[in-house]
Amino acid sequence: MIAIDWGTTGFRAFRLDAAGHVVERREAALGILAVHDQRFAEALESQVGDWLNLGVAPVLMSGMVGSRQGWREAAYLPCPVGASDVGAHLTEVQWGSPTRVGWIVPGLITRDASGIHDVLRGEETQILGIAADLGPGEHAVCLPGTHSKWITLRDGRIITFRTFMTGELFAVLRDHSILGRTMRHGADDFTAFDAGVQRASAPGGLPHHLFGIRAESLAGRLDPEAAAQYLSGLLIGHELREAVRSTTAVHLLGAPALVDRYARALRTRGIAVEILDPDAAVRGLFHIARSRSGAR
Amino acid sequence: MIAIDWGTTGFRAFRLDAAGHVVERREAALGILAVHDQRFAEALESQVGDWLNLGVAPVLMSGMVGSRQGWREAAYLPCPVGASDVGAHLTEVQWGSPTRVGWIVPGLITRDASGIHDVLRGEETQILGIAADLGPGEHAVCLPGTHSKWITLRDGRIITFRTFMTGELFAVLRDHSILGRTMRHGADDFTAFDAGVQRASAPGGLPHHLFGIRAESLAGRLDPEAAAQYLSGLLIGHELREAVRSTTAVHLLGAPALVDRYARALRTRGIAVEILDPDAAVRGLFHIARSRSGAR
Repeated sequence: MIAIDWGTTGFRAFRLDAAGHVVERREAALGILAVHDQRFAEALESQVGDWLNLGVAPVLMSGMVGSRQGWREAAYLPCPVGASDVGAHLTEVQWGSPTRVGWIVPGLITRDASGIHDVLRGEETQILGIAADLGPGEHAVCLPGTHSKWITLRDGRIITFRTFMTGELFAVLRDHSILGRTMRHGADDFTAFDAGVQRASAPGGLPHHLFGIRAESLAGRLDPEAAAQYLSGLLIGHELREAVRSTTAVHLLGAPALVDRYARALRTRGIAVEILDPDAAVRGLFHIARSRSGAR
Repeated sequence: MIAIDWGTTGFRAFRLDAAGHVVERREAALGILAVHDQRFAEALESQVGDWLNLGVAPVLMSGMVGSRQGWREAAYLPCPVGASDVGAHLTEVQWGSPTRVGWIVPGLITRDASGIHDVLRGEETQILGIAADLGPGEHAVCLPGTHSKWITLRDGRIITFRTFMTGELFAVLRDHSILGRTMRHGADDFTAFDAGVQRASAPGGLPHHLFGIRAESLAGRLDPEAAAQYLSGLLIGHELREAVRSTTAVHLLGAPALVDRYARALRTRGIAVEILDPDAAVRGLFHIARSRSGAR
């Protein structure tokens, strides 16, 4: 099969054998934002046309390619879901002559006790890629990032999840708020990061803690390089404060530099951390495809 | 005396008689950001040169004119402070020939139980303007805005204060985050505002509640005009949740439209609200000047 992880800014393709092993992989800065006039078929052919010519391998795609701004909208599937539920709700796309066919994985939707929705798209495939390895029982998985996702897995199925806008808050506050004026990018400074994480546990709340960065800078107690690290710690601390209220162990999946920060902050809270293979998406696509061929 | 309230974006001048009554007032969009090359004396003369020519009235200025980016930095004074403390710590500026003299009011600085600083500049003058009216005892005063200030007054003195970056968070999230993409400015919608305020009391924390705006929009449950109002309510709700933990009555001072929103959100929490005269700065400058002449 051909597995495509197609996000907002990146495109990654994998050719798999019947056992799910990666035979060949390709990567390009061809995210959906770089595809104009809905020319997704052309973009796909430009990257893996030679693979498509090899034969009738199924093409399975996940990520923002299934969003309203993507190739075709793949409607959100309500939780709880397992790989076979996802496999049973793929969205078909066709192109070319003779006709070629591909399938897009749906995103997931859930509601909390107050009826407020949450959504994800792309992460479902990564989670299903590691679900089998984690085995039975309940597991907390965190995918840190622009929009951090906290997923509850039970016996291989995604039960529910929560999103935290932590990474995006960091970016907009650094680039567009008064806090950014006294910040300079520097080497990792875990003293300032830890101080930010610890501050999140104090009374006052996030809008007050944020202004503290300004005041501490004016008081000469936070230098420009430390300020950015402190902000990162403060925001991650506020996320963890809510995300791990009753959790004793967390599985982390994501970019190594960010995963390290989360691991550090979690361990200072006494929570056990296991770091998972960040290439989980390709295995998720394989599990989804296999569940689908099994269902036929 | 001549009282000047000189902020980042605005300039307001008042000519007062010996009893503190406003004889004449002027206003201009001549904030400190609009004054180039440190030509503050020139800017002041352009606005009130005729008043200065009338005689030897003291000129007292408050606001960002005393910041590092202003005419001359007026160092932050540590809390607690009353009008006479502020009057005893004015920063002098001189200009012209024959020499003219003016004084700039200091900002305030405080530290919380963890040793983290907070600062304000300009609001001290407004607060001292209403302190005498509020009389003895302890009072909670809120000045909502870009950086909302919550001040504790006791027997006419400013004991401590806390800042919440609520207004600035609203602006950067609306203008620079993914949330802004599904927002449109509309008429006041108190249903959405109230829903946002209420959401702030739910578990999950601000970074999670923010993403809820995205998810509810994608789920078709929050239209573009309502989304901005909901965000406003959510942020104000998070501020109030922390700011009024043990408070039963709050005095509000600020722009009427914003004060109305805070009053609404406070009243739904069962807190008594009193709305103060937003022109308090001029009276604060008068009290400070009087305390100074009395001390001579």
